[in-house]
Amino acid sequence: MAVPESGGRMPYFYTPEGRLAQVDFALQAVGRGSTTIGLKSKEFAIISSQVKPTRSLLEPAEKIFEIDEHVGATGSGYIGDVNTLIDELRLAAQRHRLVYDTPIDMVTLSRGLSQYLHSFTMYTVRPFGASIILAGADELGIQLVQIDPSGTNFKGSGFVIGQYADEALEAIKTGYRPDMTVEQAIALNTTAIEGVNGGKSQIEHGVVRANTKRFERLALAAVEG
Amino acid sequence: MAVPESGGRMPYFYTPEGRLAQVDFALQAVGRGSTTIGLKSKEFAIISSQVKPTRSLLEPAEKIFEIDEHVGATGSGYIGDVNTLIDELRLAAQRHRLVYDTPIDMVTLSRGLSQYLHSFTMYTVRPFGASIILAGADELGIQLVQIDPSGTNFKGSGFVIGQYADEALEAIKTGYRPDMTVEQAIALNTTAIEGVNGGKSQIEHGVVRANTKRFERLALAAVEG
Amino acid sequence: MAVPESGGRMPYFYTPEGRLAQVDFALQAVGRGSTTIGLKSKEFAIISSQVKPTRSLLEPAEKIFEIDEHVGATGSGYIGDVNTLIDELRLAAQRHRLVYDTPIDMVTLSRGLSQYLHSFTMYTVRPFGASIILAGADELGIQLVQIDPSGTNFKGSGFVIGQYADEALEAIKTGYRPDMTVEQAIALNTTAIEGVNGGKSQIEHGVVRANTKRFERLALAAVEG
Amino acid sequence: MAVPESGGRMPYFYTPEGRLAQVDFALQAVGRGSTTIGLKSKEFAIISSQVKPTRSLLEPAEKIFEIDEHVGATGSGYIGDVNTLIDELRLAAQRHRLVYDTPIDMVTLSRGLSQYLHSFTMYTVRPFGASIILAGADELGIQLVQIDPSGTNFKGSGFVIGQYADEALEAIKTGYRPDMTVEQAIALNTTAIEGVNGGKSQIEHGVVRANTKRFERLALAAVEG
Amino acid sequence: MAVPESGGRMPYFYTPEGRLAQVDFALQAVGRGSTTIGLKSKEFAIISSQVKPTRSLLEPAEKIFEIDEHVGATGSGYIGDVNTLIDELRLAAQRHRLVYDTPIDMVTLSRGLSQYLHSFTMYTVRPFGASIILAGADELGIQLVQIDPSGTNFKGSGFVIGQYADEALEAIKTGYRPDMTVEQAIALNTTAIEGVNGGKSQIEHGVVRANTKRFERLALAAVEG
Amino acid sequence: MAVPESGGRMPYFYTPEGRLAQVDFALQAVGRGSTTIGLKSKEFAIISSQVKPTRSLLEPAEKIFEIDEHVGATGSGYIGDVNTLIDELRLAAQRHRLVYDTPIDMVTLSRGLSQYLHSFTMYTVRPFGASIILAGADELGIQLVQIDPSGTNFKGSGFVIGQYADEALEAIKTGYRPDMTVEQAIALNTTAIEGVNGGKSQIEHGVVRANTKRFERLALAAVEG
Amino acid sequence: MAVPESGGRMPYFYTPEGRLAQVDFALQAVGRGSTTIGLKSKEFAIISSQVKPTRSLLEPAEKIFEIDEHVGATGSGYIGDVNTLIDELRLAAQRHRLVYDTPIDMVTLSRGLSQYLHSFTMYTVRPFGASIILAGADELGIQLVQIDPSGTNFKGSGFVIGQYADEALEAIKTGYRPDMTVEQAIALNTTAIEGVNGGKSQIEHGVVRANTKRFERLALAAVEG
Repeated sequence: MAVPESGGRMPYFYTPEGRLAQVDFALQAVGRGSTTIGLKSKEFAIISSQVKPTRSLLEPAEKIFEIDEHVGATGSGYIGDVNTLIDELRLAAQRHRLVYDTPIDMVTLSRGLSQYLHSFTMYTVRPFGASIILAGADELGIQLVQIDPSGTNFKGSGFVIGQYADEALEAIKTGYRPDMTVEQAIALNTTAIEGVNGGKSQIEHGVVRANTKRFERLALAAVEG
Repeated sequence: MAVPESGGRMPYFYTPEGRLAQVDFALQAVGRGSTTIGLKSKEFAIISSQVKPTRSLLEPAEKIFEIDEHVGATGSGYIGDVNTLIDELRLAAQRHRLVYDTPIDMVTLSRGLSQYLHSFTMYTVRPFGASIILAGADELGIQLVQIDPSGTNFKGSGFVIGQYADEALEAIKTGYRPDMTVEQAIALNTTAIEGVNGGKSQIEHGVVRANTKRFERLALAAVEG
Repeated sequence: MAVPESGGRMPYFYTPEGRLAQVDFALQAVGRGSTTIGLKSKEFAIISSQVKPTRSLLEPAEKIFEIDEHVGATGSGYIGDVNTLIDELRLAAQRHRLVYDTPIDMVTLSRGLSQYLHSFTMYTVRPFGASIILAGADELGIQLVQIDPSGTNFKGSGFVIGQYADEALEAIKTGYRPDMTVEQAIALNTTAIEGVNGGKSQIEHGVVRANTKRFERLALAAVEG
Repeated sequence: MAVPESGGRMPYFYTPEGRLAQVDFALQAVGRGSTTIGLKSKEFAIISSQVKPTRSLLEPAEKIFEIDEHVGATGSGYIGDVNTLIDELRLAAQRHRLVYDTPIDMVTLSRGLSQYLHSFTMYTVRPFGASIILAGADELGIQLVQIDPSGTNFKGSGFVIGQYADEALEAIKTGYRPDMTVEQAIALNTTAIEGVNGGKSQIEHGVVRANTKRFERLALAAVEG
Repeated sequence: MAVPESGGRMPYFYTPEGRLAQVDFALQAVGRGSTTIGLKSKEFAIISSQVKPTRSLLEPAEKIFEIDEHVGATGSGYIGDVNTLIDELRLAAQRHRLVYDTPIDMVTLSRGLSQYLHSFTMYTVRPFGASIILAGADELGIQLVQIDPSGTNFKGSGFVIGQYADEALEAIKTGYRPDMTVEQAIALNTTAIEGVNGGKSQIEHGVVRANTKRFERLALAAVEG
Repeated sequence: MAVPESGGRMPYFYTPEGRLAQVDFALQAVGRGSTTIGLKSKEFAIISSQVKPTRSLLEPAEKIFEIDEHVGATGSGYIGDVNTLIDELRLAAQRHRLVYDTPIDMVTLSRGLSQYLHSFTMYTVRPFGASIILAGADELGIQLVQIDPSGTNFKGSGFVIGQYADEALEAIKTGYRPDMTVEQAIALNTTAIEGVNGGKSQIEHGVVRANTKRFERLALAAVEG
Repeated sequence: MAVPESGGRMPYFYTPEGRLAQVDFALQAVGRGSTTIGLKSKEFAIISSQVKPTRSLLEPAEKIFEIDEHVGATGSGYIGDVNTLIDELRLAAQRHRLVYDTPIDMVTLSRGLSQYLHSFTMYTVRPFGASIILAGADELGIQLVQIDPSGTNFKGSGFVIGQYADEALEAIKTGYRPDMTVEQAIALNTTAIEGVNGGKSQIEHGVVRANTKRFERLALAAVEG
C-alpha cells in the first residue's frame, strides 16, 4: 500500500524500498509501445519496429529515424516522447558537425541522450516515457545502444523494447547468428515481431553497414521483395 | 481507486500503469467537442466541423480557420484552447515567411505544433484540451495531419475528432473513395456528421486544392447550394 | 465525490471527465454577479447592467465602462476582477492607438482579452471570476462580443450574464426585434432585468451607434426620462 | 464540509460555489478591527476610527493617517497590513507629485490601491487582511472611497468598517444630513462608534475640507473641546 | 478541528475565522522567551531582560543590545530569530548614518523593522518567532517601541514580552511612576521579573537618557551595587 | 497528534505550540552523533570528540578540524552536514584574511556560522542536522562557542553535544577546575566520554593555547603517552 | 506509521526521530546494486565490481572507470546515477589539470564529490541513489575512499557496497593481509563476491599502484589467466 501512496503523491522521491517509482512507471509506458528490435553483427546493425496496425485512411507512423548519415534510431513508448528524443538526437548530431566538423561518435551521442534522460529523473515532473535504440557506425565499428527512461544505456548485439519484449527477445536470442546477412537479420526480426504480435505485421527496418558507414531506412516494399 | 487518487492530486506524473492521466483526461475534453472531420484525396483536402446548434441571437462559432494561404485548420475541445493553438499556427506560418520568404511546409508546421503541445505535458500544469486537424498543400502535395493533446501527430486520408468520433469515422471509412470530388467529399462529411448528431446540422467546411495550393473556407450557403 | 476532491486540491488539472474544475467554479462566480445584458441591431449595440440595489449613502458602482471612443464594456462577477479586465481593455485600446494611430478593431480587442483570460487558465493559480460583454463599432459595423473566464468569446445579437441569466435571456429572445430602436432596446433590457430581479431596478446603459461610431454611457436620468 | 477542506488546503482557488475563500476569510479579519467610519458632505469628509481601549502605559495606536496634503486615510483589520497599505498610498502620492508635479487625484490613488490589493488575490499566498477608507479633495470635489481586501472600491457618503460595522452603519444612515457641519459629523461618528462599543470611546478623527483642500488630523483634545 | 488542520497544512493562509494562524503560533514562541521589560519616563528609557538561569560553565546569553549610540534593543523568542532582527536593526542604523550622516530616528528604525517582519508574513514560509523592544533617544525625545512578529509596532511607557508577560505587566502598571529615577525603574523591573519567575534572577539592563542621548548597557555588577 | 502531522507535512511552519518542529527534529540528529566536548580555561581550550568505534579496515573519521591557525572546531550530527559547516568556517576564515589581512575574530566567525544556519530555518527545505563547537584564541583571549541547528550560539567554559550529552555534561561540571592543565582537561574529557559510552574509547583532541594563539590537533598517540 | 507517512509525502524533511528518510531510502537503492569492493595496501589499491550476469547478446556494463591517469572509480546503485557521478569526477579531474596543471589529489577529488552529493540532500528533490569507491595515488600515497548518497566519505583499506555488502565485508576482513600482492587481492575480492552471489561471477577489476601512480582497468581475460 505504501508504494502507490508514495508513488501517487510525490512520485519523484524514493519509496521506502529505495525505488524511483516514476521511473518504474515510465517503463510501463515503454512496455505498451510497439515491439521494436535492434540487432548487430560485425558488418551491420538493423533496427526494426512494428508499425502498429492502423485503421484504413491512416498512414502508418514513422518508426525508423535517420539521426545523421551514419546513425539511425527507433523507439518505443509515448509517441510524443519518442519524437522529442529523436529531435534531441538530431540536434546533438548537427551541433557536433558544426563544432567539430566530424560526424558524432556513438559514445558521445548515446551518453548525451543518457544525461538528458537522467536529468529528467532529478529535476523535473516526470521522466520520459520512452526507450530508444541507436544503431550507428563510427571509428569503433558498428554499434548498437539501448537507452532507458532512467538514462541507463546498454551496449549489445540484440535488444527488444516495447510490447512482448521478453518473448520477442527469446526468439532473437535463439535465432541470432554472428555471421548472418542483412536479409537474414531482417527475416529474424520480422519473425520475432510477428511471433509475439499474432502474425503478419507491418514492420519498418533501418540498416547501417560497416563498409559504407551509411544508415538507410529500408522501404517497406524493398523488405518484402 | 489508486488511479483517480493519483490522477486528482499530482496528475502529471505517471499512474502505476505508466499512463499520463492528465493527457488521458484532456482527450476526454476533446471528446466533448463538436464532431470534426478531415478528408484527403490526391487533388484536395477537406476539413469539416459541425457548428454546435446555438441559441437564437448567438452567431455560430467559427470552426474552420485559415492558417496561411495554403493551409487551413480546424479543432475540437475547449474553445479557448483551440483558439490559442490556431494563433500559434498562424504565428508559426508568418514567422516562416518572414525568415525564409517561403510558405511554411506542412512537416515544419505540424511538428512545431506537436512540440508545443508536448512541452505542456512535461513542464506545465495541464496539457491542452484540444486536438487539431491541419489541411495544407506544399511541395509534397496535399497533406492532412491530426495533432493530439500529447503532441502526437498522425498523417492520413481521413480523421474524425470530437463527439461520436468513432461512429462518424465508420461512416467516413465506408464512404471514402480516393477519386471523389470536392462535392462528394463535402457530402460524405455532412452525412457522417449529421448521422451521429441526429440529423440536419450546421457545418463549416474548408478546402485546399493541389492545383491552386490555396485554402479557402466555404461559405455555408455555397455548401448548401 | 472524486470531482470536488480533485477540484479542491489541484483545481487546475483536469477532472477524470476532462473538465477544468476551476473554470467551472469561476463561472459560478459570474453567475452571482448583477444581471447584465448586451443587445445588438445593425444600427447600434446596447449594454445594460443592473446596479445592485445599494444601501443609502453608497454611490452605485459603475457598471458601464467606456473602453475607447468607439467601444464600451460591461461585466459581471467579482468586481475586482471585472475592473482589472476593464483596465486591460483600456490599455489595449490606447496601445493600439499609439502604435497604429487608428482605433482598435473589435476582433483585435476581444481576441486580446481572450488570450489574457486563457493564459490564466494555463499558468496561474486561478482564472478570473468575471465575464465581459463588449459593444463597439469598427470597419465591420456594430459588434457585440461576450468573453468568458476560459477565454472563449462569442459573437451575437443578444447576451445575458450574471444572476438569473437564463431567465433574462428568454425575455430577450422573445422581445428581440432586428429593427428596434435604441429606446425599445433599453426598454427590453430594463424589462428583462427587472423581470428576473423582482421589480424596479437601477440599471446603467451604454450605447454605441453605427452612424456616429461613438460609445456613450447613458445618464440614469436620461433613461428614465 | 467540502468548503472548509478546499479553503484550508488551497484557499486561493475557487470553492465549488465559485467563492474565493481566502478573500472571505480576510474580510473576517477586517471585521475584528476597530470600528471605523467615513462620512462625506459636499463641504468636507470626515474619517473617524475608534482607538481600541488600551491598557495604561501604552500609547493609543495612530488610526488616522495623512497620505498627502489633500488626502487622509484610515483602515481596519490587521495593523501590520493597514500600515503597509498606508505606506503604499503615501508612496503613490509622492511618486505622482514627482512625475506630474500635481497632487494625485482620488481616482488614480484609489484605483492604484485596488490594483495592488487585487494582485494579492491572484498571485500571492494571502490577500491583505485590511480595508481602507480614503477621504480627499481634488478637482472633482470632496471624495470618500472604501477599498476592500479583494480590491473592490466603493464611493459614497458614508462607510463603516471593522467591529459592529453593520450596527454602526444604521446609526450613521439615520443621523446623516447632507448639510451637516463638521462638528455635527464628528458628533454623529462618535455617537455611532460609542453606541456599538458600549460607551465612551477614544476616537481619532481626520477632516478634509472643500474650500481649503487640506486634510488635517484632529487633535483628540480639539474634538472633546 | 478545522483550525489546527488549516494551520498545520498551509498555515500562511487565513483560517475561516480570518486569523493568520502562523502569526498566532509565532507569538506562542515569543511567550516562551525570557521575561523582558521596557519602561520609559521623560528622562530615560530602561530595557531589562531576565537572563534565563543557565547551568554552570555556560556564559549567560547577551539580552541587551546596543543598536547605535542612541538606541538599544532587547527581544524575546527564538534566540536565532532575535539575533537576526538585532543584526537587521544595526545594519539599518549604520546605513542611515552612511546615507544621511545623522543618527537614525526611532520612527524610521522601528517602521523599517515592522516592514521587514511584515514581509515575512506575506511572502515566506514562516514569520519570525520573536518580539523586539526598542529604547532610543532622538529629536522627539525618549521613545520606547515594541514590535511583534506580525510587524505591528506599539509605542508606550511600559511593555512586557516573554514568559509571564501578563503578570509582570500588572506589577509594572502598579509600580510605574512618571517621575521615577533610573534606579527606581531598575528596581521595579527587577521586582516584576523576579516576581513572576519565582525569586532572585539574573537580569540585564540597558538605559538611554534624554540629556546624553546615549544608550548604555549596565554592567550586572553595577546594578547590584 | 497534531504535532507529528504538522511536522511531517510542512515542517517549517510553527506547530500550534509555537515550536519549529524541523529544528527540534534536527536536534535529534545531533543527539545521535558521537559524544563531543569543549572545555575552556583562561590559558587554553580543548575540544574532544569520541571517534565512533569503526570496523577493521576502516580509518576512523576525522573529528577535530583546524579552521585557521588560531581556531579549531568539532561537531556532532550528520557527517555530511558537519563537513559542509567546517568548509563554511574555513572559507570564512580565509576570506577574512584576504580582505582584512588579519586572523578572523571568534565573534565574527561564530556569528557568521549562526547566520548561515539560521537562514536554513527560514528559506530552505531543512535545517542542518549538526551542532558545532568552536575553540579559538583572539584579541579577547581564549573562546569556546557552541552553535546549534537553529543558529543559536552559546559561549561558556564547558559544552557537550552528541550522544549522552546530558550525562557527560554532569561529569564535566563535577570535574571542571578553572586552573586545570591541558593534561588534566584531556583526562577529564576522556573520562566523561568513556563514562557514558561504556569504557575505553578512541578520542580525538584539539587544543588552542592563550600564549601561542595556535590551534593544534593532538596526535592520538601523544594523548595516550 | 509516522515515518512512512512523513517519508512518502515530504521526504526531505526530518522525521520526528531526526532522520533524513530519503537518504535512508537512497541507501536502499545502493543496497540493490552489484557487489562492489575496494581494497588497499601500501603498494596498491584494487577496486572490483561484479558485472551482473547479463543475458546473451548484451555486453556487460562497464563497472570500473578511469577518472584520470592516477585515479579509478567504481560504484553501486542506479546506473544512471553512477554514470552521472563518474562524469562529475572526470570533469573535476580535468578542470584541476587545466587550472593547476597538476593531477588532482584524492582529498580534493573526494571532498568535491561529497559536496556535490550533499547539496542534493539540501536543495533538490532526491539524493543520488549511488555510492562510489575511489582508488587513487597521489603525494600521500595510495588512497581508497567511499562516498555515500549523503555526501559522507570514508577512508580505509577495505570497503564493500551493493548487494550482500555485509556478508562480503566479513570475507574481506577475514582474508585481508596488509602485505598481499595484487594477485592475492584480486583473488580475495573474487572469492568474496562469488561467495555471496552464489558462485562463478563475471568481475571487473581496476588497480592503481604506488610505484607507477597509474590506474589501469584489468582485462577480464588477464584476471582469469
